[in-house]
Parts: sequence; C-alpha cells; structure tokens
Amino acid sequence: MKEKLQELKTRLAEIDDLQCANAVLGWDQSTYLPAGGAPARGRQMSTLARLAQEKFIDPVIGHLLDELQPYAESLPYDSDEASLVRVTARDYERALKVPPAFLGQFYEHSAITYQAWTEARPANDFAKVRPLLEKTLDLSRQMADFFPGYQHIADPLIDFADFGMRAETVSALFAELRQALVPIVQAITSQPLADDACLRRNYPEAQQLAFSQDVLQRIGYDFQRGRLDKTHHPFTTRFSVNDVRITTRYDENYLNDCLFSVIHEGGHALYELGVHQDLENTPLASGTSAGVHESQSRLWENLVGRSRAFWEFFYPRLQATFPAQLQDTPLDEFYRAINRVQRSLVRVDADEVTYNLHVMLRFDFELALLEGSLAVKDLPEAWHERFRADFGISAPDDRDGVLQDVHWYGGVIGGAFQGYTLGNILSAAFFEQALKAHPQIPDEMRQGKFDTLLGWLITNIYAPGRKFTAPELIERVTGGPIRIEPYIRYLKNKYGELYTL
Amino acid sequence: MKEKLQELKTRLAEIDDLQCANAVLGWDQSTYLPAGGAPARGRQMSTLARLAQEKFIDPVIGHLLDELQPYAESLPYDSDEASLVRVTARDYERALKVPPAFLGQFYEHSAITYQAWTEARPANDFAKVRPLLEKTLDLSRQMADFFPGYQHIADPLIDFADFGMRAETVSALFAELRQALVPIVQAITSQPLADDACLRRNYPEAQQLAFSQDVLQRIGYDFQRGRLDKTHHPFTTRFSVNDVRITTRYDENYLNDCLFSVIHEGGHALYELGVHQDLENTPLASGTSAGVHESQSRLWENLVGRSRAFWEFFYPRLQATFPAQLQDTPLDEFYRAINRVQRSLVRVDADEVTYNLHVMLRFDFELALLEGSLAVKDLPEAWHERFRADFGISAPDDRDGVLQDVHWYGGVIGGAFQGYTLGNILSAAFFEQALKAHPQIPDEMRQGKFDTLLGWLITNIYAPGRKFTAPELIERVTGGPIRIEPYIRYLKNKYGELYTL
Repeated sequence: MKEKLQELKTRLAEIDDLQCANAVLGWDQSTYLPAGGAPARGRQMSTLARLAQEKFIDPVIGHLLDELQPYAESLPYDSDEASLVRVTARDYERALKVPPAFLGQFYEHSAITYQAWTEARPANDFAKVRPLLEKTLDLSRQMADFFPGYQHIADPLIDFADFGMRAETVSALFAELRQALVPIVQAITSQPLADDACLRRNYPEAQQLAFSQDVLQRIGYDFQRGRLDKTHHPFTTRFSVNDVRITTRYDENYLNDCLFSVIHEGGHALYELGVHQDLENTPLASGTSAGVHESQSRLWENLVGRSRAFWEFFYPRLQATFPAQLQDTPLDEFYRAINRVQRSLVRVDADEVTYNLHVMLRFDFELALLEGSLAVKDLPEAWHERFRADFGISAPDDRDGVLQDVHWYGGVIGGAFQGYTLGNILSAAFFEQALKAHPQIPDEMRQGKFDTLLGWLITNIYAPGRKFTAPELIERVTGGPIRIEPYIRYLKNKYGELYTL
Repeated sequence: MKEKLQELKTRLAEIDDLQCANAVLGWDQSTYLPAGGAPARGRQMSTLARLAQEKFIDPVIGHLLDELQPYAESLPYDSDEASLVRVTARDYERALKVPPAFLGQFYEHSAITYQAWTEARPANDFAKVRPLLEKTLDLSRQMADFFPGYQHIADPLIDFADFGMRAETVSALFAELRQALVPIVQAITSQPLADDACLRRNYPEAQQLAFSQDVLQRIGYDFQRGRLDKTHHPFTTRFSVNDVRITTRYDENYLNDCLFSVIHEGGHALYELGVHQDLENTPLASGTSAGVHESQSRLWENLVGRSRAFWEFFYPRLQATFPAQLQDTPLDEFYRAINRVQRSLVRVDADEVTYNLHVMLRFDFELALLEGSLAVKDLPEAWHERFRADFGISAPDDRDGVLQDVHWYGGVIGGAFQGYTLGNILSAAFFEQALKAHPQIPDEMRQGKFDTLLGWLITNIYAPGRKFTAPELIERVTGGPIRIEPYIRYLKNKYGELYTL
C-alpha cells in the first residue's frame, strides 16, 4: 500500500507541477507580458492545462484510488494520507464526468467571450456579447447535466466552488441575511453620507506601495515567500506553499483602491501560505472553497483592516507617509471615511454593508437563467429593475449593470458569486471564535501585532488546506453549520457606533 | 503526407509549448523569484524538462519522421517543411542516443555541482568542488560515448553547441587565430594603458536603465515583443518569436557593465526576434548554433556598440543623461576608454582583443581533460601556469582562475567555450558582408539608424532560424567556410587607429 500511495503521490506531484507552472505563466501574463507575447502565451497555457487534465483522468489514477480506498479508510479521517485519497477521489470522480472535448469547447468559448466582453463593456454594448452569453448559458446547463441527480440545476456548479452547498441552502441563508440586512442599510442610508474627501487627495504610487508593503509585513505576509506586483485586476496566485504572490493596482487620486485591495489579497495569500508544509505538491495544498477563501480575504480586509483598532496603530504611520495629505485629518474622520456606507452601482467598490445585496442579485439571476425563468435577452432590463428595487437608484447603463463583472463572460453561469457572501458571513463567524479564544487580539492590533490572530487562523483554518470540506471546517471551527448571526452582530456593533441604527 | 506532417507539427508544438513554459519559469527564477520559492521551482522546471523530453523521444515521432523523409527530400532544401523534417530528424536521432535515466542523473549531478560552485567560488575553495568535477568529467566522457565513431572524444560534445564543428577543425582555426592575435596583443600591451577613469564615476541605476532602453529601441529591439529586467548574471530568453526578453545588472560605479551587457544581450534577442514568424512553435524557431548566436551578440556589442560611428550619435545623448559625470570628457577619450586593451584575469571582463586567449585556454583544457592527458586534480596548477604563459600575469587565486566560469560546474566538460571565439570570428565575417552589400551602414550608424544593418541580418542570418547548420549558413552568407581573415582585418584596422601596431 505504501508503494501504491507513493505512486499516486508521484503522479499527483507531476500534475501539481504542471498546474503551478501554468500559474506562473498566468501571473506573468497579467503583470509583465509584452503585448506581442499574448497569442503564444494563450496557447502555452492551454497546452499545460490540457496536459494536467489528461494526466489526472488517466485510468491508472482511478485504479490506484480504488486500491487505496480501504487502506485510507483504516487511517484517521484527518490524517494526511486518508485526506489525500478521499479528496483526490472526489476530484477524480468529478473530473471524469466532464468529457475532455466538452471542456476544450467550453474553454475556447470562454476565451472568445472574455475577449468580446473586454470590448463590449467600455462600449456599453450588451448586444455584442448577448449571443455569446446565450451559448455560455447553454454550455453551463450542459455542464450541470454531466452531474445528474441534482435537486436544482445550479447545484453541481455551486459545488465546483463551494463543495457541499446547494441552491436551496444558499437561497435560504441569503433570504435570512437579506431580512436582517435591509433594515440596517435603510437606517444608514437615510442618514447623511460620510465625507471621504480625505481619501480623494493625491497619493503618489511609490508611497502607496511602500505603505502597503509595511502593512503586509506587519500582518504576517513574508516577502521571502511572496511578492507584490502591479496589474490591472488584483489577484493572488500560488506557485508553491512557499511562493504565494499578490498583485495590486494604484489610483493616485483614491487611497482606498490599492490599500484595501492589498489587504484583501494579502488575506487570500496568508491562507495559502498557512497550509501545512507536509501537504506541498499535493492536491490538498490550497484553500478549501471559494467561500472559505473569501472569508479570509474579507476577514483581513474588513474585520481587521477596516477596524478602529487597526488604524489606531497604522494611522499615525499613514500620516507620516502622507503628511501633506492627512496631517489635518483626525483618525475619526479617516475611520468614518473608510467605512462610508452608500448605495452604489459597482459590486467591487461597494462597502461591506451593501456588498451582499450586489451578490444576492447576481446569485438569484444565475438561478433564474439556469432554470429558464429568465432569458439572456431580458437580463439587462431585469438587472435595472431589480437594482432599482434593491438599491433605490438606477444604473445609467449596462456598463455598470449587467456588464460590470467578468465572471459570466469568462466562465460558467452558476456558482460564480455565492462565495463572496458566504465569505462575508464566515469572516465574522471565524473572527468571533478567534476572539473567544484570544480576547487580547484587538489590543494587539492596536500595537500593530497580529501573531496571535494569524497563529489561531493557521492552526484552525489554514494548515489543513483542502483536508476538510467547507461544511466540515465550519463545524470544526464554530461547532455548528454556517450561521448569519455573528456577521449581523458584527455589523450592528460596528455600524451602531458610526450611525444611529 | 500533409496529415502526417500536421501530426508531427502538432506534437512538436506541444513540446515547444512545454519548453517555452519552462523558459518562463527559468526567467522568473533569475529575476523575481522570492527565496522561499526556489525548491519548488527547481522541481517544477525538471518536471517540465522531463515531460518535453519524454514527448520528444516517443517512437511515434520517429515513425512520422521516417515516413516523411522521402516527401521532405522531394521538396526544396530550404523550404519550411523539408527543413523541419531534416532538422527534427537530426535532433531526434541525437536525443534517442542518450538514455533518459542517464540524463536525469546528469541533471541531478549538475544541480548539485552548480550549488557547490556558488559557495566554492567566493570561498576560493577548489577542493570543495574537485570530486564533483571529477564526476562531471566522467559523465561528460560517458555522454560522448553515447555517440561512437568520433574522431576526438570532444567531438560529440562540441556538436551539441556547434553542430558540424570538430575538435580538430576548431583547434586548427584557433592555432591560426593565436598566431595572428599574439603579436597584436603584445604590440598593444607594450604601450601605455588607456585611461578609463571616465567610466568609473558614479552612474545611478535609473539613468543607466533609461539610456540602455534608448539604445535598445534605436538598434531595433521592440519593447512590444520583449522586456528588460534586472538579474545577477545577464541572459536572453525566448518565450515565443514575439516575446524575447533580456536581463541586465547594474554597477553604479562602472558604466560598462550594464551598457555593453545590454547591447550584447540585445544582439542575442534581435537574432531570436528576427526568426521568420512562419517557424514559430517549431524546433526551427531559434538560433542555429552557439557560435552563430554569439556572432550576433558580439557583432552588436563590439562591431556596432564599440565603434566610433555608433558613439558619434550616442555620446552626446550619454553626456546629456550624465552631464556631471561626462561633460568634460571628450568623445575620443570615452572611445579609447571603452576600447581599452589589457591583460586581465576574468574572461567576461576582457576586451575584444585579449578575450579569445581566455577562450583558447579553456578549450585546450577541455580537450586535455577529456583525453585524460590532464587530471582534474592538476587543473588549478595547470591553469595558473598556462595563464602566466599566455597573459604574462598571475592569477592570485582559483576564484579568478579555474573557478571563474560556471560552465563546467553546471554542464558538461567539452564544447562549452569554443562558441565564444567562433562568434568573434564570425561577427567580423558577417559584418564585412553586410558592409559589402550596404556601404552606407557606418554613415547610418552616425545618425543613430540601424534599419539597413538589421534588415540585412534578418534576411541573411536571422529569418532562417535553425533551417541551416552553422557551416551551411556561413557558406551561404560569406561564400566559403569560416575564416579568420575578416576578424583580423577588423582588429588591425580598429586598433591600428588606437595604437601603434
């Protein structure tokens, strides 16, 4: 059995090497690639993806998994070996169900649609991508149908990102959240808008970078095991458990863009860097689900990075970095500015209170499109209508309406968005547990220390990597299933101090 | 046949994708990789190299080549198809001869030896690497023995880098060159040393970079099809025919280091970027031999970049970039400084006159080691002795003696060095042909224009990629075999103006 396990590990290591190599190519594509190199890069990346897929669905891997199953089941559930066999078997079963030819067709269509979207969005031209999106919907339904026996057609697609979640459970959770959230949004938005002029002064890129690096280092991001580079759309990428890189962009006239994007991506990176070294080069060596991953980016971005305790330490340093811009702005004014709540058009720019309404709108549309109760041709109008109903304002065009997010234009329709709100809900649930275990965390933050918090997160959430599914992990950490109460408590507590609720 | 050709091309394209992907990983390794990422990167690169090798030695490729051979021979010799089959068959035959297990063992040994060398050189500790180098010599002999029927044991190893050259022909050529060169070196070095104080002022990195970019752009390097990044040991790397990147380093107290290294690597890059687009993603899409490649880096670095005509245009721009450093230095003084000839210890710092003596010393030692007439243990002393004889000065240690070059510590002993001098010889032979076709080239250089020269080089040398072997290419371009006369004419002409010869 040891030999069979070794053979499995060797094969999986080779696949991981191909995937990590492809991640390097993708990182370069989004950071340093000269324009002329783009066509060859697309080709090289699809070759590596195809080879990794071919090697994974090799029947030999299936045989090895079958043979190892009883042995794995004889080991402790959370042992490295049992987890490796269990999680790989799940991945394998899923991978086998989607024919490689379909996958090739799907990737090709996605690449074309993405390209069309990059032109359609600035041109506010939904008609240009409409036929492509109709095909995407068709392919997304076909993708779901490779996994028969579902309750809702979105379930298999939700499973890809957030294994163990279903349309019904997510819908129920979101309905509950909406009920608690809408009165908070209404209460806040009926009060005067906070002044964020202090964020909209001129902040030169070089100092933004220096300050971002300082923040990253202090929250525990190790520049010996990662980098911060410049890109158009910030992302985090992993080349190994000891090389997890983040990217950012700079708006010299708006401080928030880089600052919170860096802490957000830093949170994703701390998760990947915290996976136990023993899991390196196996399929277990990354985050367990979209929702849990987002819980970490949002925990660091919002519960830490937008907290008063955090800025009690960092604000004097920020003022020292930007004396001309901030010397006359007191901490309280700055704190209110970075936590300004408003009804706005664009999800990625939304504050943490209204953000989830953006996600729910998209999630509901995904279900309706997949069910067939909404047609692609009617989507722009449906978007405007729902947006007015939920936000009380009108989007002036499709650019900042149905065209604003890349997700549907570069992947499947279904399962693309729920992770963001699951992440928000979980960020508070996990943070509450960390505070329960270590009540001194806020005091430490006031001193610019984050070791206790990071240590707790590593032990409880990061180290296991993909060993546990999201529901298993949530149960282990919080003692029960996902619940919205900690998140609502967090919002009421924080925004109750900033506004009359 | 069209179908078989297509299948061959598809397979070769996949291999090229793997190799180019590996080049991206290597570039990142030498430019941006954080220290923590190093072990995984080594593993990933060896996985990609192994997969590319496995895919290339697949018997299906051999069958396809066999079947396509008669068809290819019916086509014009220089057609893309005939060349693809001919050159691939040669590569294939060679690849089959070396057992993959041996190759794996060799790469592993090289990695260990390289690592040891990075510590042994600064410590001046040849004893540390001696046993490893003895094994390298043993493995190099084994490597040669996979190609029986050679005249000299170095021949197969020389063939790897400079196909069609043999120890005997190179030795004869080098003997002839030495006879012409030694009197020139003696004549120059008996005269007063040129003053290069103007190069040894403080030159800040940012302005060095800006000036280097300007030079690159003007000689025809297209930043839409490449980049210039920072590294420890400058190199050029190719990710596709439209993405060829160069790297450099900066010495803020010595202007030459970055400047001529950039032009040198720029020459390598112009070659790779000049390969015809139709050859992209095939084994024909790169330079044809070490010697011809070096002829282009040296042509641009020395025959162009160290010429008076070049600096008549660029020197006022350099003075404008570094007014405080250079305003009082006339062009003539600068020109003498960048062409200063002296007996020096280190090959990579040597001027273009003495450079070849460094190469010949190494080439002769490679032959002696492989023949067994020199033992590794006697190498340091033999080096010192030969160095004194050739240069009239003594190396104070092994650091700048036998330990100075990486080649033997990261690859085979044999075939590693002759390309540098073949390149010098060819640079003048090719340049003479370009001048014959377009006598206005020096005048154009005086105006900062290089299109005519670059155009001639692309048409005659770069566009065919690997279609022709080096001897074939030399014959086509110069009308005969490699000859030293143009190079000697060039040296006598240039240095006759600078010194009494």
